[in-house]
Amino acid sequence: MRRKEVLMDFISDFLTKFVAQLQSPTLGFLIGGAVAAAVSSRLAIPDAIYKFIVFMLLIKVGLKGGIAIRESNITEILLPALFAVLTGILIVFIARHTLAKLPNIKVVDAIATGGLFGAVSGSTLAAGLAVLDAQGMEYEAWSAALYPFMDIPALVTAIVLASIYTSKQKKLAAENEYRSKQEFYGEQKEYGQQRITASGYPHEEQNHRVEIWPIIKDSLQGSALSALLLGLALGLLTRPESVYESFYEPLFRGLLSILMIVMGMEATARINELRKVAQWYAVYAFIAPLIHGFIAFGFGMIAHYATGFSAGGVVILAIIAASSSDISGPPTLRGGIPSANPSAYIGASTAVGTPVAIALGIPLFIGLGQAVMGG
Amino acid sequence: MRRKEVLMDFISDFLTKFVAQLQSPTLGFLIGGAVAAAVSSRLAIPDAIYKFIVFMLLIKVGLKGGIAIRESNITEILLPALFAVLTGILIVFIARHTLAKLPNIKVVDAIATGGLFGAVSGSTLAAGLAVLDAQGMEYEAWSAALYPFMDIPALVTAIVLASIYTSKQKKLAAENEYRSKQEFYGEQKEYGQQRITASGYPHEEQNHRVEIWPIIKDSLQGSALSALLLGLALGLLTRPESVYESFYEPLFRGLLSILMIVMGMEATARINELRKVAQWYAVYAFIAPLIHGFIAFGFGMIAHYATGFSAGGVVILAIIAASSSDISGPPTLRGGIPSANPSAYIGASTAVGTPVAIALGIPLFIGLGQAVMGG
Amino acid sequence: MRRKEVLMDFISDFLTKFVAQLQSPTLGFLIGGAVAAAVSSRLAIPDAIYKFIVFMLLIKVGLKGGIAIRESNITEILLPALFAVLTGILIVFIARHTLAKLPNIKVVDAIATGGLFGAVSGSTLAAGLAVLDAQGMEYEAWSAALYPFMDIPALVTAIVLASIYTSKQKKLAAENEYRSKQEFYGEQKEYGQQRITASGYPHEEQNHRVEIWPIIKDSLQGSALSALLLGLALGLLTRPESVYESFYEPLFRGLLSILMIVMGMEATARINELRKVAQWYAVYAFIAPLIHGFIAFGFGMIAHYATGFSAGGVVILAIIAASSSDISGPPTLRGGIPSANPSAYIGASTAVGTPVAIALGIPLFIGLGQAVMGG
Repeated sequence: MRRKEVLMDFISDFLTKFVAQLQSPTLGFLIGGAVAAAVSSRLAIPDAIYKFIVFMLLIKVGLKGGIAIRESNITEILLPALFAVLTGILIVFIARHTLAKLPNIKVVDAIATGGLFGAVSGSTLAAGLAVLDAQGMEYEAWSAALYPFMDIPALVTAIVLASIYTSKQKKLAAENEYRSKQEFYGEQKEYGQQRITASGYPHEEQNHRVEIWPIIKDSLQGSALSALLLGLALGLLTRPESVYESFYEPLFRGLLSILMIVMGMEATARINELRKVAQWYAVYAFIAPLIHGFIAFGFGMIAHYATGFSAGGVVILAIIAASSSDISGPPTLRGGIPSANPSAYIGASTAVGTPVAIALGIPLFIGLGQAVMGG
Repeated sequence: MRRKEVLMDFISDFLTKFVAQLQSPTLGFLIGGAVAAAVSSRLAIPDAIYKFIVFMLLIKVGLKGGIAIRESNITEILLPALFAVLTGILIVFIARHTLAKLPNIKVVDAIATGGLFGAVSGSTLAAGLAVLDAQGMEYEAWSAALYPFMDIPALVTAIVLASIYTSKQKKLAAENEYRSKQEFYGEQKEYGQQRITASGYPHEEQNHRVEIWPIIKDSLQGSALSALLLGLALGLLTRPESVYESFYEPLFRGLLSILMIVMGMEATARINELRKVAQWYAVYAFIAPLIHGFIAFGFGMIAHYATGFSAGGVVILAIIAASSSDISGPPTLRGGIPSANPSAYIGASTAVGTPVAIALGIPLFIGLGQAVMGG
Repeated sequence: MRRKEVLMDFISDFLTKFVAQLQSPTLGFLIGGAVAAAVSSRLAIPDAIYKFIVFMLLIKVGLKGGIAIRESNITEILLPALFAVLTGILIVFIARHTLAKLPNIKVVDAIATGGLFGAVSGSTLAAGLAVLDAQGMEYEAWSAALYPFMDIPALVTAIVLASIYTSKQKKLAAENEYRSKQEFYGEQKEYGQQRITASGYPHEEQNHRVEIWPIIKDSLQGSALSALLLGLALGLLTRPESVYESFYEPLFRGLLSILMIVMGMEATARINELRKVAQWYAVYAFIAPLIHGFIAFGFGMIAHYATGFSAGGVVILAIIAASSSDISGPPTLRGGIPSANPSAYIGASTAVGTPVAIALGIPLFIGLGQAVMGG
């Protein structure tokens, strides 16, 4: 096949997947909610219901991860799992230092987007496993259980980074206000030499720094991460399979569809924020899955040579990193970073990131794995 | 068989179905809620839950209709669908100009009852299809998909008519108050010649008229019709089958049973309203299914001769018109016409209309179809 | 087998069941909620959701009992059912006059615990039926349907007794306050001869007595018992099987798991109440199942000799009495006796009572039945 045909095939494949994503319940209900708000509908989901839906979704994500980790062989999985955690955290920091620095991009939106791209899409992973199976490429049975090790750290990192950023901003604002007041009252002495102890205002030396650990602790105690970690602990330490399979799992997609309507309605209200920056999200969402996949592929290679982690397992790790969550991530970020605009991160992930990961990422990393390790 | 036996058979058949309806979850939970309120129970469903249940039920009704329309062949179905829409709208106007004019009947209750008799009962339709199959009468596979074309226009028409009526009443009240004030202040000049421009009070010429379009727009933006239309659009334009089948459809009957308890509790509080008028609802509910069926049968005949719509299809259209909703209609009317008394419209439909449609309507229209078109 | 081995076997069997109970969703989610609260999580379930969950659980418990009673043969079941009712009521009175009198035990906690031990565990009953089947011991098919006759009276009795106790306490407090005021105002005449009519204060003769019937009526009208009895009536008089099986039954365990999280969070807040009395609950929970079983066994023997109730049926009645509810009881008591500490009654029942009933009660009563009646 000539190169042009390959390109045409890819574009047609990508567009097919793109249209299918637009019709998926996740994005469909988001757009539905956005349109309802745009035509001034008085549709409303009571706040108590909204909070409960977020709680239900997060407990479910945690339970699923906890059960998957419990069922895996922890000694065998250790090094790849560590690399999965590292990749998940790294992805969020990359977004913090690339996407967030672009002009007009709101930092919390960029961090949330990074969190969503660090989180994992179960359907992308399933698609990858299917292609691996079809090609007869072998992998450890527990490889798919690596996903919570990347998913949950990425989401936690995003929420904590957003908290730290928000705290810094508040502090900066408070200081600026204080500084203005100082000037207003005509105090002439040098600001830098001043030491405030009783008033609670910071020493100049600590300026622009915030205590990291209290913020991490506070993030973990927040309702979003609490529910996620509670689910994780229950999945790990108890036997919630019956209630998970009869209740949390079947209700998940339906409750998610309602959350999507709520997030869509909010998206309309905040659409102006995105007008100037949509192109940056598109660029990020197109490139990031491949870069994240390469990073995880590199880590996987280390595990391959160090502990004999299979070539198929390395490919799976790369696919997990390339995927971006459109199911488990949004409710977590919604609960954990309420100030971020859902249409930024969900739009980037669902409309661009997922089709790229499936149509481009999966064949790329399988080919690479076969070429490099002869899988 | 002699005429008397036929009559006896019909009465016994009707009574059997009547008792079965009283034990059906829909009416059973309604009566349960009514009895609980009558014995001063402090049972209560939180308002947030109530609103969410209505939302869930309406999204589901819309989704189901949207999916059914999407899956039908729109060009083939066009004329019968148009007749279904017309019949649905007509049924509500008939109730507005017959039932609503009877002594002591509240107009909004009559309009809501018309909406419910215009809406469609899935179980009556299923019973009709079973009898048609048993008799070997052929019909187009898409005939059953005609139901949302009658169901949704009837409900929308009822809600809009009720809004228009309520607006007129408010306006009338405001004018009367104004008139009284005029008299009170002893202003002697002729009221009819007076022109008020700045105060917002209407010109005499426009008296008793209200702007229709703003009311229709407002009805459609209300939370009830918004949810219904959002579901319809999502069913038509996206692929929500998986979430519909795993979430909205299985939860529907259960959530409906809770709504019935709420409506039953309210029914007790408003039972006095119905004391004087119950006989009119019984008469309407007995006659209306047959008249509505004949109207749809007539429309169907036009389609039969114009486009070759099958005799079985004509019968199905008549059965759809004869049926009155006891599942999808009540939550819609409850959300859309909150001032109407649920025990009026649900009692009329479930306790009388549905048994009449099944025991009398189905055999009547099948026999008529065979006699007229030789199906 | 020597006596020591039998004891070792029993202890190992008991410990296995104890650990399994700790991992069961019911207790696991309770502990999870407790730990979340202990680490100052801001996890919260909105109040509207909490109330709705309790309502859902109670309607379901009532429906199940109502359907079971409707499907049983009421004339055959009459005497055993009467004995089941008596046992259920008796168990609560026993707790009221033993556990509640122990030092530092809160009376409402003891009554609630009695209610839970009078209520029935479906899984203990199922385990008992399995062992009976394995041993080829015959019993009437309707024996299992005896459970609601013990379950619901026990819960109702507990709620009513708790209401009476609380009313008496309030009255006592009011009288004491009144007495202090009398002394404060220096009124010297004998208090006992005084008659108050208009003020609403009681005559001395009625002192410390409260009207029982208004409290029972009030308990029955409360939201908890109303929902339970509404479910019971709907299960008995209508045909709610379809909605029960598609909605209330599948959602039950999941909603219960959420209620357990809420109750766990509360348990942490009230843990100090239990510090001094945990040993009494452990003693009660270890002994009570066996005593309750013997009482029911005695009643069953009367029915055996009076009406030919089978030996297997007598054993089942004893197992029902020995079991303590960890599924249906907690939400009822939570709704009906909100002042009782859930960690007292759930801990006693789930962590000790249920393992004792299964590991010790079932073999004990089967052996006894075979020895006494030659089943």
